[in-house]
Amino acid sequence: MIISTKKGTPLQELERIIKNFECMGLQVTLIRGTDYNVFGLVGDTTKVNVKDVAANPWVDQVTRVSAPYKRANRLFHEADTVVDVNGVRIGGTEPIVVIGGPCSVEGDDQICTIAEAVKNAGAQMLRGGAYKPRTSPYAFQGLGTEGVMDMVHARKMTGLPIVSELMSADKIPEFEENVDLMQIGARNMQNFQLLKEVGKMSKPILLKRGLANTIEEWIMSAEYIMAAGNDNVIFCERGIRTFEPYTRNTLDLSVIPIIKEKTHLPIIIDPSHATGNYRYVEAMSLAAVAAGADGLIIEVHTDPEHAWSDGAQSLRPEKFAQVIEKCRTVAAAVGREMY
Amino acid sequence: MIISTKKGTPLQELERIIKNFECMGLQVTLIRGTDYNVFGLVGDTTKVNVKDVAANPWVDQVTRVSAPYKRANRLFHEADTVVDVNGVRIGGTEPIVVIGGPCSVEGDDQICTIAEAVKNAGAQMLRGGAYKPRTSPYAFQGLGTEGVMDMVHARKMTGLPIVSELMSADKIPEFEENVDLMQIGARNMQNFQLLKEVGKMSKPILLKRGLANTIEEWIMSAEYIMAAGNDNVIFCERGIRTFEPYTRNTLDLSVIPIIKEKTHLPIIIDPSHATGNYRYVEAMSLAAVAAGADGLIIEVHTDPEHAWSDGAQSLRPEKFAQVIEKCRTVAAAVGREMY
Amino acid sequence: MIISTKKGTPLQELERIIKNFECMGLQVTLIRGTDYNVFGLVGDTTKVNVKDVAANPWVDQVTRVSAPYKRANRLFHEADTVVDVNGVRIGGTEPIVVIGGPCSVEGDDQICTIAEAVKNAGAQMLRGGAYKPRTSPYAFQGLGTEGVMDMVHARKMTGLPIVSELMSADKIPEFEENVDLMQIGARNMQNFQLLKEVGKMSKPILLKRGLANTIEEWIMSAEYIMAAGNDNVIFCERGIRTFEPYTRNTLDLSVIPIIKEKTHLPIIIDPSHATGNYRYVEAMSLAAVAAGADGLIIEVHTDPEHAWSDGAQSLRPEKFAQVIEKCRTVAAAVGREMY
Amino acid sequence: MIISTKKGTPLQELERIIKNFECMGLQVTLIRGTDYNVFGLVGDTTKVNVKDVAANPWVDQVTRVSAPYKRANRLFHEADTVVDVNGVRIGGTEPIVVIGGPCSVEGDDQICTIAEAVKNAGAQMLRGGAYKPRTSPYAFQGLGTEGVMDMVHARKMTGLPIVSELMSADKIPEFEENVDLMQIGARNMQNFQLLKEVGKMSKPILLKRGLANTIEEWIMSAEYIMAAGNDNVIFCERGIRTFEPYTRNTLDLSVIPIIKEKTHLPIIIDPSHATGNYRYVEAMSLAAVAAGADGLIIEVHTDPEHAWSDGAQSLRPEKFAQVIEKCRTVAAAVGREMY
Repeated sequence: MIISTKKGTPLQELERIIKNFECMGLQVTLIRGTDYNVFGLVGDTTKVNVKDVAANPWVDQVTRVSAPYKRANRLFHEADTVVDVNGVRIGGTEPIVVIGGPCSVEGDDQICTIAEAVKNAGAQMLRGGAYKPRTSPYAFQGLGTEGVMDMVHARKMTGLPIVSELMSADKIPEFEENVDLMQIGARNMQNFQLLKEVGKMSKPILLKRGLANTIEEWIMSAEYIMAAGNDNVIFCERGIRTFEPYTRNTLDLSVIPIIKEKTHLPIIIDPSHATGNYRYVEAMSLAAVAAGADGLIIEVHTDPEHAWSDGAQSLRPEKFAQVIEKCRTVAAAVGREMY
Repeated sequence: MIISTKKGTPLQELERIIKNFECMGLQVTLIRGTDYNVFGLVGDTTKVNVKDVAANPWVDQVTRVSAPYKRANRLFHEADTVVDVNGVRIGGTEPIVVIGGPCSVEGDDQICTIAEAVKNAGAQMLRGGAYKPRTSPYAFQGLGTEGVMDMVHARKMTGLPIVSELMSADKIPEFEENVDLMQIGARNMQNFQLLKEVGKMSKPILLKRGLANTIEEWIMSAEYIMAAGNDNVIFCERGIRTFEPYTRNTLDLSVIPIIKEKTHLPIIIDPSHATGNYRYVEAMSLAAVAAGADGLIIEVHTDPEHAWSDGAQSLRPEKFAQVIEKCRTVAAAVGREMY
Repeated sequence: MIISTKKGTPLQELERIIKNFECMGLQVTLIRGTDYNVFGLVGDTTKVNVKDVAANPWVDQVTRVSAPYKRANRLFHEADTVVDVNGVRIGGTEPIVVIGGPCSVEGDDQICTIAEAVKNAGAQMLRGGAYKPRTSPYAFQGLGTEGVMDMVHARKMTGLPIVSELMSADKIPEFEENVDLMQIGARNMQNFQLLKEVGKMSKPILLKRGLANTIEEWIMSAEYIMAAGNDNVIFCERGIRTFEPYTRNTLDLSVIPIIKEKTHLPIIIDPSHATGNYRYVEAMSLAAVAAGADGLIIEVHTDPEHAWSDGAQSLRPEKFAQVIEKCRTVAAAVGREMY
Repeated sequence: MIISTKKGTPLQELERIIKNFECMGLQVTLIRGTDYNVFGLVGDTTKVNVKDVAANPWVDQVTRVSAPYKRANRLFHEADTVVDVNGVRIGGTEPIVVIGGPCSVEGDDQICTIAEAVKNAGAQMLRGGAYKPRTSPYAFQGLGTEGVMDMVHARKMTGLPIVSELMSADKIPEFEENVDLMQIGARNMQNFQLLKEVGKMSKPILLKRGLANTIEEWIMSAEYIMAAGNDNVIFCERGIRTFEPYTRNTLDLSVIPIIKEKTHLPIIIDPSHATGNYRYVEAMSLAAVAAGADGLIIEVHTDPEHAWSDGAQSLRPEKFAQVIEKCRTVAAAVGREMY
C-alpha cells in the first residue's frame, strides 16, 4: 500500500502515521519530497482499509499495490482449481461445460422435457429457477420447493447435475440436500450474509457478477465464500449495466483472461442474460469459448413464446444443439475440448 | 402497453397474440401499417412482463405506458405520505429531518458521545451501523447485537430515534424490538426475500437506492415492501455508480422531483456515501434541501481519522452543526421548515 | 508519481528505470519490499504519461500524485478567476449569472421575442444555437450565419451578451466578430484541434463537460485552451450519461465544490440538458445555486411545443421568471447575490 | 412511431396533434383508452424528432418503431457492403483483415521497421497515428505531416495500405491524397461537421465508436457520412466507458451481431484500446473473430516500453504473429478465411 500526504503535513503528523502502521506490524518507508511525502507499506495489508486511511485530512491518495484477496489469489495458489459438480468437472484443462435449461421451472413435465432436450443437445448440466428474483412483486416468483423437487426428478431421469438460484439463507438445507450447484444471483453478489452462509455449505457455488460490480469486488465476494470454508467457487459473467439499450446488459468478455490471471478459479459465461436476446446468444457463446471460458450457461426452452419468464433470451433445443456444435469446433481451434 | 410487430407477421400470428391478451382480460386495439403493426393494450397491465412479451420472435418492441407500480404510485394516492419514526414525522409538509451518526457503532461510549453531539448539533435521529456490509471479509463486520444495544442505550440517553441497517431476515426480531427505522442498504435493494420479510414488519423502512438501479426498479422495490403490507417506506438516494473516480459515487439529485412526482412517499439524501468525501458534504446537503428533499442522513464522527469505517466521509460535530444551520436558511428560502 | 514494480523485477531493470526518470530531470527514490518495489518521483511530472510508464512489463501500477494540469490548478493560482463576458462578470464573488434562450435560433422574430422575454424575466445573457449538433443528419441543423446575425440583432435590441455553440474551426472568424461567449459542446469537449484553435481567440469560452468524461479530463480540456493562450474558460456541467432512462442525463452537482477546490475557474450549470425535462429544471436550478454554482444556463422558449429542437426541456418565460425569483432567495440564503 | 398521451388530454389537443402529423405526410391512427390514448404513425418518420414530440406537455411517451437511419439500414440494402481499401476488401464473405502498427508514428525508421514486421506477421494494412488526440496538451501530439509522409514511405516499401486518424477538416486534402483509410476517432464520433466533410471524400472511413455512445448513435454517425455521399464506412468497436478500472474500456463484442443485423456495413474490433493491456489482446482478438468480426486493428510496436504513446497495450511483432495464427484457426472454425 502506498500513501501520499499533502504538502505541508507537519512532521509530528507524519510520525504519528508511521507509528500507527508500525503498530499493525507493517514496515513503513517514507519518501520526502518538496511537494508531497510518500509512505510505502510492506507486509500483510489485506486488513488495512483504503477508505479508512483516507480519512486523515493530511492524506492525499492511497493506492493498494498488493491485491486485497488471498484465498482466491493466483499468486498464492498457482494451479488452476477444478470444481467437481456431482461428477462434472469444471476448470483447468477439463473440457468446456455447457449448462442448459429454462429460466424458471414451470412444472414437472416442462422441466423433464427440457432436461431430455438439453441432454440430447449435448449439455452436461441442467439449470432451472425455483426461486426467482423478479423486479416486480406481481410477477411470477417461482414454484419454490415444488420447483426444486421437479429439478430433482429431472436429474433422476437424465443424470444431469442441477443448478438453481439460492436467494436466502433459510433455503440452505433444502439446497444442500437437493441441488448440485448453488447459484448466487447478480443481485445478491454483495449480500454478504448469504455469502458467509453458503461458505459453510459442502456444495459448490456459482457466483454471478453483480450488475455494476467491479472485478475486484467480485473476487472479494468469492473471498467471502472461501474465507468461510468453501473453496469451490465458479465465477459467472452475465453482463454489466451500461448506457446501451440494444442489449439487456453489456457482456464483458475481458473478464475471462483477467479472472484467469488474478485467480485460480473457473469462470463460465451466461450469454442469455448478458444480451437478453436469443439472436445474439450464438455469437457471444462462440466468443466466450474462443476467449477461454470454462463453460457456458444458456437459457433453453421448448416454447420460448410461452415461457413464464425470460423467453426473449431463450434458445429452442434445436438451436441450442447447433450452438454447442459450433462451440465444439471453436473449442478445438483454441486447443480445448468439450464434453 | 404498446407492442409493435415486425413487417410480414402472418395474420394468424397477429390473431393469436390478440387472443392471448384478451384472455388476460385486456382490451386490444390493432393498428396495421405497411411496415409494422401496433397493438395497444388497455386494462391492468401490471402483471404483463415486458420481456415475456418480447419473447415472441414476431414482436419488435414493447413499451410500457402505465407504470408497473400501484401502491407507491402518486396517481392512485394523491396525498403525500408522512412516515412517523417513533414520533419524528418525515414527508409532506413536515419539517426537514436530519439524521446524524457514525458509519459503525464502535462501542457504548462512542455512540453515546456522538449521539449527544448530533443532538446538540440539531439532528432528530441517530444513525449507526451494527451489522456492516463490507467488501472484504477481512474488514470489521460490525459489533452485531452489542452494537444494537449500544444504539438503544444512546436513544435512552438522548431521546433520538435510531436508524440501523438490517442485512438479513434472521435479525428481524432483534430489529423489530429495538430499532426505530430499518435501513435496507444499497447492496440489498434487490434482495427480494428480505424486502418481502421487512414488508411484514410494523416499523418503517429506509430504502436506499442500489448502486446501479434505475428509479423504476427502486420504486418497484418499495412496491415489494408495500405489497407485503408495510406502507411506511422512505426512499434514500446515496449516489449511483458511474465512471467518475473523484467521487465515491455520483449523487443524482434529480431523483427528488421525480420520486415526488411519481410516488407519494418521502425521500431523503445521503451526501456522505454519495460523495465519499467530507469536503463535499456541505454543498450537497444544501443542494438536496434546495431541491426539495424531506431529510438528510449524514455521517458524523468525533474522531474521523480513527473511525473504524468510512472516516473519510464523516463530519466532526462542529461542522455538522454548521451544515444544519446553513440548511436551515436554504430550507426557509424554499418555504420549508427544519426541526 | 508513484510506480510499483512486480515481485522479481531484476535489479538491472530497476536501475534502468531509475536512470530513465533521472534523465527527465526527476528525482527518484526507491523503496524495496519483499513483494514489490516502489519508486517515488519528485519534480515536474506533468510530461510523464501514466500509460507510457505502464508499458514496461515489470511495472505493476502507476499512480499520479500531483495533478496533470497547471494553468487551471488552484494550487498555482489561489484567487478565483472572474471572466468578463462583454460586461457581465462571472465567477468569484460576482453575482450569479442567468443565461436564457432557445435551444435553436429559429428566425429573427423568434430570437428577438425570446430575448426580450428572458431579459424581462431577469436573465443577463441570451443563448441560442445557430449551428446545431444533431444525432441525425436528417434533423434541423441550425440556421448558420443567418442564426448568428439574428442573435446579433437580438443583442442590439436588448443589450444582452450572446452565447452560441461553435462546432468547427472554420467559423472562428464569424464567432470572434459576433458572439460574446463561445460554447464548446459536450460532443466536442475532446475535439482537441478545436480546443487549440479557440485557445487563440480573444473571447471567453464556455466548456461543456463531455457525455462520459471525468472531471480530470474536463479540466485537461480547459488546460488545452489555457495552454494556447486563452485563460477565460467557464466550465458548464450538463449531465453525464448513465444507465438511468427517466432523465436525459444524470446531473452531477458534486462537480461544483470539486471544480472550485481544484481550479480557480467559474462553473455554471445547465439543468435543461441535464434532465431533458422542463418539470425538473426548477428543482435542479435551486440545487445548483445552493451548491455554489456561478451561474445557470436554461432553455427558454415562448412556444415549447413547436420549438424546432429540445422543446421538452424548455421553460416558458413566465416559469423562467419564477425560477429566477426562487433562485434569488436561495442565493441569498447561501450568501450570494444574483444580478 | 408510437405516441401516448396522458389521461385527460382534451379532445381538441388530440385533434391538433393528429393534424400536425398529417401535415407531415404521415398516416395517424388513434387508440383511445380509459387511462391514455395512443397514436400510431405510419410513413417516413426519420425526420420526426422524438424529443420534439415529447415537448408537448400532454405527451407521455414516444417510441420509435422504425429505425431513424436509412442508408445504413439492412432493411433497405440486404446485401453486405464490401469496402475496398486500396485493394484490400473488407466485409461480407471476404477474408478477415488484420491491421497492425504503432499507436504513433515516431519517425521514418520506426514506422518502416514496424511495417515490415507487421507485414511479415501476416497483417494486410498498417496503422499509425500522425495526429494524436491526447488528453493532455503537454503530451506528444504526433508528428503531423511528417508522420503522414513516413506512413506513405512505409506503404511504398511494404505495399500495405495505410490507416491514420483524421482529427480536423483542414487536413482532408492531405489525407485524401496520402492515406488509404481515414480513421475517425472515438472522441470525434459526434463531431458532426467533420462527419459531413469526410462524407465528401472518395476514400473509405473507419468510424470508431464513441466512449459512451449507443449503437444507434454510432449508426447515425455512419448515416451522416453516407448522407453526404460516402457509402464506404467501416465500424470499429474499441470499448466503451464503464465503472470497471481493471481495463481501460469495456469491450462490447455484442455489437458484432447487432451491427450485422441492423446494417449492411463491415465491422472490425480494436482489442488494444478496448483493454488497454497487451496481456488481454490475444483473448479478445480470438473472441472477436469467433463472434464474426470482419477484421482486427491491433497495436504493434517493436519496443513497447519506449513507445511514445500507448506502449502498455502494444504487442511485439512475434506475439502479433502468434495472435494472427491463432485467429486463423478460430476463423476456420467459424467458416471464415483470413488473408
